[in-house]
Amino acid sequence: MAINKFCSICGAVTERIVPEGDERYRAVCTSCHTIHYENPKLVVGCLVTRNESILLCRRAIEPQKGKWTLPAGYLENHETAVQGALRETTEESGAEVSIPTPYRLFDLPHISQLYLLFRAQLLACPFRPTRESLEVRLFHPKNIPWDALAFRVIAKTLEQYVHDAAKGEFSFEHHVISRN
Amino acid sequence: MAINKFCSICGAVTERIVPEGDERYRAVCTSCHTIHYENPKLVVGCLVTRNESILLCRRAIEPQKGKWTLPAGYLENHETAVQGALRETTEESGAEVSIPTPYRLFDLPHISQLYLLFRAQLLACPFRPTRESLEVRLFHPKNIPWDALAFRVIAKTLEQYVHDAAKGEFSFEHHVISRN
Repeated sequence: MAINKFCSICGAVTERIVPEGDERYRAVCTSCHTIHYENPKLVVGCLVTRNESILLCRRAIEPQKGKWTLPAGYLENHETAVQGALRETTEESGAEVSIPTPYRLFDLPHISQLYLLFRAQLLACPFRPTRESLEVRLFHPKNIPWDALAFRVIAKTLEQYVHDAAKGEFSFEHHVISRN
Repeated sequence: MAINKFCSICGAVTERIVPEGDERYRAVCTSCHTIHYENPKLVVGCLVTRNESILLCRRAIEPQKGKWTLPAGYLENHETAVQGALRETTEESGAEVSIPTPYRLFDLPHISQLYLLFRAQLLACPFRPTRESLEVRLFHPKNIPWDALAFRVIAKTLEQYVHDAAKGEFSFEHHVISRN
């Protein structure tokens, strides 16, 4: 997360004060008085399946290098959430997938992130290792590497997906994952 | 949206280049080489109802001062989406409401925003004008001021809500609102 010690508009030093009419400390420029707001970031990704199996990527980069994850990453400016989820899926797994449907939204307030994860089906196009993934594989729910998952939000999503898949019901849900 | 002309970490000038392994132009510091990513912002708010009527706020501040809107605003760091939606509702309308349930997610890629709107019921506590709202009122669906709504995303949400309310079905949906 960027620490706004200097003003990104004019380069002067900022100070952390509560601006008039506000209730929070903000980095405010001591020269041009621009208020630099800091807001949560949205991570978008796909839970891609073929038949019963789920596509996981083994991370080639830190953090959690070597651990398994769902393809996901920060939404970019001027991109829709679906475009971002598809881009991340292709970047991390090479996979091409069906039109995604919203599946889970998780708040991670301790790190000021939200995860929006879509469900999608794998199309014929083959998946493969990428610059971001050492390995890309389909896992049957019985073989998910629970002890080698990269992030708690990924473990939660997979747990809930396996539960939903057993019932055949995949409605959208919104949950909070707190630090502990 | 902040234009990162200067590095917020060290104050040096940035240049817009495509960093190695990236595919997008980023503001990169010419001195400490920090990459300054710019990402979409999430707006959270509530569609508050009492019986059939919907709570709207008349904006006391620009943009769209004097126009009607749902209480909503930027999610803050270290806040959950529900906490943010409740905070904005109280700040803009004084209303206290029931636990919100997710209703609509809208992508607005042309302005790099997403709107996450919850449904909630008005509790006994009275609503009132606030620093941010000239007027706060309950509108029966037949009396919604369609010609005086602040933003297209608000008009879309109200249109869809009136449609859903007629059927008595309020499932979560995700849509894109593009510029035109």
